[in-house]
Amino acid sequence: MLRGSTSIRIELLEASTVIRNWNSRVRQTLQVGGLLLGGWIAGGFSCMSQERWLKADEGMWLFNRVPKAHLKQVYGFEATDAWLEHLMKSSVRFNSGGSASFVSSDGLVLTNHHVASDTLYKLSTAEHNYNEDGFLAKSLADEIPAPDLELNQLVAIEEVTAEVNQAVDSSLSPAEAAKARQAKMAEIEKKSLEATGLRSDVVTLYGGGQYHLYRYKKYTDVRLVWAPEAGAAFFGGDADNFEYPRYCLDVTLFRVYEDGKPAKIEHFLKMNPEGAKEGELVFVSGNPGRTRRIYTADAMRYQRDHRLPDTLNLLRRKEVLLQQYGFGGPEQKRRSKDDLFGIQNSRKAYTGMLEGLQDPAFLKEREAYEAQLIAKLEADPKLAPLASAFEEITKVQQRRLALKGQSASVRSSLYGIAQNLVLMAAEDAKSSTERLREFRDSNRESMLQGLYSPAPIYPDLEKVMLADELARMVEDRGGDDPLVATLLDGKSPRARASELVDGTKLIDVAARKELASGGVAAIGRSTDPMVRLAAAMETEYRRLQKISDELDEIERQAYAKITQAKFAVEGDSVYPDATFTLRLAFGPVKGYALDGQTIPSHTTMAGAFEHEASHESTDPWVLPESWKKAKDKMKGQTPYNFVSTADIIGGNSGSPVVDRQGNMVGIIFDGNIQSLTADYYYSDTVGRSVSVHIAAVLEALRSIYGAPSLADQLGR
Amino acid sequence: MLRGSTSIRIELLEASTVIRNWNSRVRQTLQVGGLLLGGWIAGGFSCMSQERWLKADEGMWLFNRVPKAHLKQVYGFEATDAWLEHLMKSSVRFNSGGSASFVSSDGLVLTNHHVASDTLYKLSTAEHNYNEDGFLAKSLADEIPAPDLELNQLVAIEEVTAEVNQAVDSSLSPAEAAKARQAKMAEIEKKSLEATGLRSDVVTLYGGGQYHLYRYKKYTDVRLVWAPEAGAAFFGGDADNFEYPRYCLDVTLFRVYEDGKPAKIEHFLKMNPEGAKEGELVFVSGNPGRTRRIYTADAMRYQRDHRLPDTLNLLRRKEVLLQQYGFGGPEQKRRSKDDLFGIQNSRKAYTGMLEGLQDPAFLKEREAYEAQLIAKLEADPKLAPLASAFEEITKVQQRRLALKGQSASVRSSLYGIAQNLVLMAAEDAKSSTERLREFRDSNRESMLQGLYSPAPIYPDLEKVMLADELARMVEDRGGDDPLVATLLDGKSPRARASELVDGTKLIDVAARKELASGGVAAIGRSTDPMVRLAAAMETEYRRLQKISDELDEIERQAYAKITQAKFAVEGDSVYPDATFTLRLAFGPVKGYALDGQTIPSHTTMAGAFEHEASHESTDPWVLPESWKKAKDKMKGQTPYNFVSTADIIGGNSGSPVVDRQGNMVGIIFDGNIQSLTADYYYSDTVGRSVSVHIAAVLEALRSIYGAPSLADQLGR
Repeated sequence: MLRGSTSIRIELLEASTVIRNWNSRVRQTLQVGGLLLGGWIAGGFSCMSQERWLKADEGMWLFNRVPKAHLKQVYGFEATDAWLEHLMKSSVRFNSGGSASFVSSDGLVLTNHHVASDTLYKLSTAEHNYNEDGFLAKSLADEIPAPDLELNQLVAIEEVTAEVNQAVDSSLSPAEAAKARQAKMAEIEKKSLEATGLRSDVVTLYGGGQYHLYRYKKYTDVRLVWAPEAGAAFFGGDADNFEYPRYCLDVTLFRVYEDGKPAKIEHFLKMNPEGAKEGELVFVSGNPGRTRRIYTADAMRYQRDHRLPDTLNLLRRKEVLLQQYGFGGPEQKRRSKDDLFGIQNSRKAYTGMLEGLQDPAFLKEREAYEAQLIAKLEADPKLAPLASAFEEITKVQQRRLALKGQSASVRSSLYGIAQNLVLMAAEDAKSSTERLREFRDSNRESMLQGLYSPAPIYPDLEKVMLADELARMVEDRGGDDPLVATLLDGKSPRARASELVDGTKLIDVAARKELASGGVAAIGRSTDPMVRLAAAMETEYRRLQKISDELDEIERQAYAKITQAKFAVEGDSVYPDATFTLRLAFGPVKGYALDGQTIPSHTTMAGAFEHEASHESTDPWVLPESWKKAKDKMKGQTPYNFVSTADIIGGNSGSPVVDRQGNMVGIIFDGNIQSLTADYYYSDTVGRSVSVHIAAVLEALRSIYGAPSLADQLGR
Repeated sequence: MLRGSTSIRIELLEASTVIRNWNSRVRQTLQVGGLLLGGWIAGGFSCMSQERWLKADEGMWLFNRVPKAHLKQVYGFEATDAWLEHLMKSSVRFNSGGSASFVSSDGLVLTNHHVASDTLYKLSTAEHNYNEDGFLAKSLADEIPAPDLELNQLVAIEEVTAEVNQAVDSSLSPAEAAKARQAKMAEIEKKSLEATGLRSDVVTLYGGGQYHLYRYKKYTDVRLVWAPEAGAAFFGGDADNFEYPRYCLDVTLFRVYEDGKPAKIEHFLKMNPEGAKEGELVFVSGNPGRTRRIYTADAMRYQRDHRLPDTLNLLRRKEVLLQQYGFGGPEQKRRSKDDLFGIQNSRKAYTGMLEGLQDPAFLKEREAYEAQLIAKLEADPKLAPLASAFEEITKVQQRRLALKGQSASVRSSLYGIAQNLVLMAAEDAKSSTERLREFRDSNRESMLQGLYSPAPIYPDLEKVMLADELARMVEDRGGDDPLVATLLDGKSPRARASELVDGTKLIDVAARKELASGGVAAIGRSTDPMVRLAAAMETEYRRLQKISDELDEIERQAYAKITQAKFAVEGDSVYPDATFTLRLAFGPVKGYALDGQTIPSHTTMAGAFEHEASHESTDPWVLPESWKKAKDKMKGQTPYNFVSTADIIGGNSGSPVVDRQGNMVGIIFDGNIQSLTADYYYSDTVGRSVSVHIAAVLEALRSIYGAPSLADQLGR
């Protein structure tokens, strides 16, 4: 699955120095994560040259830089401004790490079940398991408010590169430059927020080559309307994940409200139940989380030999831990399932990414390209100074390597809350532009929504997670490290975790608010053991944060030079690396050949039953009762899932897929395993994005879930 | 489970430089592993002082150094030489990594199902799954020969310390000393083999402080008689593993043959179906695989901060890999299940060990003890020179750390075979005493049994395992390492693994024999890609092996000094660290208190049904059909599993538990999770060994498995 979490949650999971917290509650994690993205994700852009690009459908295009000429030339398609604006404003971002679209005039939002699963999980209890069993609101009154969702609709993009760069001159050290740049970005955002009332994020594009201001309308009253069972949405489970052919109804419907009533939506997608046939051009509008295609060969090496292997070790560790916890019983299984799936999903994705990087042919090609580019730069006296950027990036990798294992971040929901409270108290004493990025005024509302989320925190699971994090810290830093001594306080990881979780009051939202209201003094006075621990870690945390900011800034400046070089040598018709902001991708619906087999572009709903039978109906290939009951009634030949060559990655989950008329034909939910190199490079030989066909959504609502009127509302 | 694999297979899995091969076939691994033990496991001995020891039942005692006075004083028990000899000769070692006992005059051998599972797995096919479904031979003719088992009965122990040490004088460098010592050991073994016809192993005890010659009668015609279903043997699966209370029928019966007929056995155990009650003293006779209790504080630090975390990363990696492979279908699940269980078992065991080391209190105590010992040494001019040993061991840890990631070992069955063929060809050109230890003459028969094992090798599983090993090598050494370039040959790990597995002929035993018969010339001529790869890796492999031998020798000499120091300061009534050789442990049957709960020493067979019901009969808590059918017929109150304080560790699996009369009351199959620190230290506060009660074995044979006559044969 292309959960936002594939990239974003894992950014948090892996980042050794910059993350605030690891919340086993995805929502909380991602809210922080999403808002942090502008700050610490330095998107790059593709290294592919124009000529090569023309051969394929590569590209995650900015809505203000769509390759209109290319679309016209290759596909005879006219991307008018009106067409683009309608699609942009019909698109929705789940700040929890996914994409979606408006699909009715009265606020219906269609996304993936696996994007919704975090909310489904938070709404579930030991008695009602909406994630497993599904949900259908019989009327508006039945729709259940999500505890902490924030949905964003992009309404405007403004170029602010010159303004941001003005704040930084060459006399500043990287650390000073990073600070000055952040302050300027915060200032622009605050001004925009005050002027428009819209959420305003300055987005770093082309790895630091450009800065654009994105303005969003925010929706925070979001209610659950319909979700199928996990057995239908995630049929085939971890085994089928990233595979194709597939048979998943990976969709969920929410509705946004304003002033307690369904929101009136001007831009929403109409349905095209006929869908797109093999060979037909489709468009994907969504928020790819992060790619690293601009990376230099040495930066790729660091990914290959350090970041990805370390991340995979961490993922496997958490996977095994949560599996073991789930053995405790059905309720433990329920509590850990969403996180476990997310982690398994990421592990599979990262394995695919690493496989791509480990193929010697890839780096060889990248190096040849780089050598050629550098040669062209050095041949031109005006461009020659830009060539040093490659060496600067190499040096950053060496410094990152030297920081290995020096994390001061503990991935636990309760610790994360404590740390945010400690940091916020200190940050609030500064002016907004001086603060750590997530505590700036323009982000206050979103940050507090996460901090005060009433989503359940389970003490037993917290203990298991925290004990493992403490153990990990002993392993990473060594048992004799002074910070480790502070962490353990003379106890074993398990004993210390129990003491901390049993002793803290932060599980109670009121206790968080009370502490927050008291500022620095209240933090200083607090005897809460989790707060005391976060306070003891603060200095080291800030030290590492500062180094990380500095390294990011050096990379930003270097990639800005490389961007300039590429624009000069290759022309400016290139797209920037993904930044969890809205992008347009496109390509035909297209089957592929693999290991001598032809894999057709579409599956059918009847195929799900055959797939179940071929696995003898064993877990995870067990269709829900609702499907079995409806088997004879439903139109089995309804197309179910389909593939296209559109260039997507984690974060694109839930993206609408539309035809030339801008009508909805499907919804992205996955990429096949061959597409997983997309973080580093695009390939359409066998790499494919995978969607649920919109006809299957409508047929399922009508014939399986007893909700024909809901089906009738879609597109109206 | 205390599979031999817990310690031994994992020794192989983790050891970065010294191992020959990783065979997904346990048997093969362990045969090599078992025979290597004398060579590269430098057993130590407990650091516990005499006074402390007297408080508990700590100790894995040599049969020629049983603490008779202590047994007499504390338990009023007279351990006569006849009693000891009978128990020793009734005990059996599975060279595949477990313990067992003779239980009838006509060759019946009782061990654990999980010790047998490797053989059950090898005897199984897609059609007959003896591991899952169990097996019962209706007559002698039905008994199925195991493909490659070697059982050992210890018949004599001889002290050879002086002779071994004579070969090494202080003028030799560590590398020369290691070579000279190995040559001497090989010479002693060869002489003994020629004189007695018995398998002869020189065992390094007290970390190098003493050398004893062990002579074994070998049985290689071993046939399967009875195994229960995995659902009964491993009821509760990975979830219940290392937990207590337990309900497992973890037993299997084999029979040894000589000259095609059931072997006549003089020493075998009689049964005591009454068993041992709470508080009653019991004895355990088995082969604990390895402990590290002699380790210095700095050696423990290396374990805590490097060896165990690295091993756990590797185990989790293989666990996730095999799980994913098993998703392929029921046959894939069957093929990977035994290895997967072994790995999960080890992962759980290692997690427990690491938790013990991460408790700051443990190392603090160890350091205090060490400081005291050093002070005593330095106060005595005669002993003072011994104190330098601690610093020498510290330096070895630093050198080991510098070798991190420099492995030249590929864990794949087919690669292992290729490597053994390549090494054997070169080694055979030398005299026996000059060879790598496992290729010495006295070990030839055992080595070839593994090399020529007809056990199935599945190409699809091999590809998955090998691709992962190649990827791991890229990660460990970095993608630009020259050895990695050789390994990958310009292809991705997955593509290269397919090429190697598809291209090799070594899956065919005849091809192995043909290559072996041609010596160095045949290896040089071979175009088999797996052989070529092993040949290309040979130099680096030998280089690392040499360093490893040198470090082991330095440690041996240093631990020999520490042993001498301890004997001088604390007296000589101490036991050496485990070495996968026969030991005697003892202690009372005894329940314990945990988290405010009292956990009784015994469970009953009826309790298994209650345990199943409490987990709603979900996997892995599903009793087999045979149990359900027999439920009303069986005596539910029959004791099932029980705990005692006897000091055991992995390798003890299958050890007979006997009463004061030497009659069998049970069979060891596990330790609880609190006992897992046993690698580093013993604790009987809540640490317990777990056994199957012999009454349950008899009752199950009679009432569940329709084999009353087999039950009647036991003990006769």
